[in-house]
Amino acid sequence: MECLPGFREFYPEPLPHKDAWSCDARQHIFDAWRSTARRYGFREFDGPPLEPLELYTAKSGAEIVGQLFNFVDKGERAVSMRPEMTPTVSRMVASSERAYKKPIKWFSMPQLFRYEKQQKGRLREHFQLNCDIYGEADIAADAEIVALLVDTLRSLGLTEEDFVIRLSSRQAWQRFFASRGGDPAHEYEFYQVIDKVEREDPEVSAKKLQPLGISYDDVQSFIAAAEPTPELSELIRNLEARGLGGYLKVDYYVIRGLAYYTGVVFEAFDRKGEFRAIAGGGRYDQLVKLLSHGKVDLPALGFGMGDVVLLELLKSRGKLPKFTAGVDVLVMVEDESLRAASLGLVQALREAGRVVEYSLTPAKSDKQFKRALELGARFTAKIEAGPEGSMTVKVKNLASRAESVGDLAAALAATA
Amino acid sequence: MECLPGFREFYPEPLPHKDAWSCDARQHIFDAWRSTARRYGFREFDGPPLEPLELYTAKSGAEIVGQLFNFVDKGERAVSMRPEMTPTVSRMVASSERAYKKPIKWFSMPQLFRYEKQQKGRLREHFQLNCDIYGEADIAADAEIVALLVDTLRSLGLTEEDFVIRLSSRQAWQRFFASRGGDPAHEYEFYQVIDKVEREDPEVSAKKLQPLGISYDDVQSFIAAAEPTPELSELIRNLEARGLGGYLKVDYYVIRGLAYYTGVVFEAFDRKGEFRAIAGGGRYDQLVKLLSHGKVDLPALGFGMGDVVLLELLKSRGKLPKFTAGVDVLVMVEDESLRAASLGLVQALREAGRVVEYSLTPAKSDKQFKRALELGARFTAKIEAGPEGSMTVKVKNLASRAESVGDLAAALAATA
Repeated sequence: MECLPGFREFYPEPLPHKDAWSCDARQHIFDAWRSTARRYGFREFDGPPLEPLELYTAKSGAEIVGQLFNFVDKGERAVSMRPEMTPTVSRMVASSERAYKKPIKWFSMPQLFRYEKQQKGRLREHFQLNCDIYGEADIAADAEIVALLVDTLRSLGLTEEDFVIRLSSRQAWQRFFASRGGDPAHEYEFYQVIDKVEREDPEVSAKKLQPLGISYDDVQSFIAAAEPTPELSELIRNLEARGLGGYLKVDYYVIRGLAYYTGVVFEAFDRKGEFRAIAGGGRYDQLVKLLSHGKVDLPALGFGMGDVVLLELLKSRGKLPKFTAGVDVLVMVEDESLRAASLGLVQALREAGRVVEYSLTPAKSDKQFKRALELGARFTAKIEAGPEGSMTVKVKNLASRAESVGDLAAALAATA
Repeated sequence: MECLPGFREFYPEPLPHKDAWSCDARQHIFDAWRSTARRYGFREFDGPPLEPLELYTAKSGAEIVGQLFNFVDKGERAVSMRPEMTPTVSRMVASSERAYKKPIKWFSMPQLFRYEKQQKGRLREHFQLNCDIYGEADIAADAEIVALLVDTLRSLGLTEEDFVIRLSSRQAWQRFFASRGGDPAHEYEFYQVIDKVEREDPEVSAKKLQPLGISYDDVQSFIAAAEPTPELSELIRNLEARGLGGYLKVDYYVIRGLAYYTGVVFEAFDRKGEFRAIAGGGRYDQLVKLLSHGKVDLPALGFGMGDVVLLELLKSRGKLPKFTAGVDVLVMVEDESLRAASLGLVQALREAGRVVEYSLTPAKSDKQFKRALELGARFTAKIEAGPEGSMTVKVKNLASRAESVGDLAAALAATA
């Protein structure tokens, strides 16, 4: 009974087979996500992995609906496993915002789901860091969000040479469209064409642009000029003041597919262009109002970063550490009459915070020592019986080979 | 569009309304779970939250089937959101065990789901710490698992006065049943009666026991005697050697509902008996073989601990810390001409690991200072312009009121 197609099993390293995903690498990424968001003063939240279907069908662009992992539950409710976090967090903020000082800075790390046509290696779930700011319309909030995105990637060892943030603006495209006499009713349709123009055959794009009254060459010139809007210029100045200017590029190819973006939008890409987007986000000032049926009106912005492309990038750039059990001490039991005392030592070391392993059952001394080496333990420790029932602990440092003998306090000090 | 009945939303503290669950408390529990399991040398794994329905219907006791959160997916597969982790981990171990040294010691912290009749306050999801050992038949492994359970609760501040581990044995009950001439075909039926005997009306239990050929008084005497089996005695000696004897009680009322247990079983309860079980587990030596269709035969044991009862207990015993954003430094921007330099300071402090907040937009100095106090920040820091374009950083310790002025390095040292 294998696991369902498109779902992953996460194993401890070293990985047992080629279909295994690393739980250690996942936790390494989660730790970096959480600690960076916290340094920026973001607070963690979470919502249900299953939501009313309407939460997504009512507000998202049509492109997401066909991919939902939705079903009817035993209570006849139309429900969906969450495909994204923004509708959930917008609802949570709308219901609780009066209790929090603005701006509200929140993050979460949900598992998200989609039901796509099954293709080899195409996943139906992934984890995503979501960071959002609610209640601040100023571009300074956009800068804070982009800085957090940059530092999240930097905290995993990635540098200016590894990735770039492509900055764009829905407003820049809105003005472009309006100034060319575009019909506001077809504005989102136009964005959808722009969203694909980088990868699509120019003739196809030109054909799609024609009925909208827009010339393909005009679009290309606009993108090539990459003239920052005043807002983008301010955003860039803010990030330069933090020393993060080298990570930025104005790039109007980026527009983001989802319907709800309203201002600055951005995507993080590897510099070599080998992978899909590492992260993406932007400002969505109308969504809270929409989802709260007009009750709450808060400007908002944020980004999402998935674990799959990120992991591929970290692997390919050699940025993942070697994962082990992190064993501090292997307690050796060479004399079974000393097992009870050895268990006391195991307990004392663990209570002092050490990661401790030992052989649950009698084993030859050299086998136990070999296990310590395999595990990469920093120390071995063993109880030794002295005269008149006295006992001492011998600690061996496996790197330096230095040995020391003393009481429990000495053993704790020696294994610090 | 509210969230579905029985699902929770987790908010940052302080909580905004009475239906809000604390994401900070959840993370506090997760941190304790993860760090304790790691100290015991357990490695983290995870599986899919959605599994083939057959994984559960084929092997679990009938009592779980009616509660499954199951449905048919778009690919016509009968699937279920996971109600427990043991079948998943048994499958993962069966498929990978040759790559790992025995015993395999694994933990996970999955969200689990069930579809029960909706009652007020009755949840349809919870999180559960799962710790399991595979490949060790000796009672020493049972002791290691129980010790881990005890230390997990202790790591959250709970003591011998707060909780007790009730130890029991499927074998003890098996021998009891066999020695009274019980029919092996009805053995699991008998366990089901015993599982409820503590809370059920004695007459009802007696009536259920009669057709099995067992007398209610006989059962009560057996429980009252609480005579440890040789295995339980050895388990207790092992735990006493670790100084954990005070947490234990032999109690044959415990037998565990699930069909797959084969040896020692146990449950953790609060001493005052105010709550449902905090955790439960035991040995299930046949399950890997069953799930792998006989291909892999590994003894196994483990426990599960949910987040809901645990949180109630921690709350009622006053063991939860006060949760804050943990802000180290609030950077004050009193002179907007110094904002760019202030952003540089924010960045430098964050890069040094500090949790830093600042006002994204211009704000009065006293308002910024008030915010520092509200956030419980440890320090304020601000850029001050000196003569000839020089700049210094003034750091104020909000507890001691001590102030210092110096360069960036001094500010980093002062806020360490």
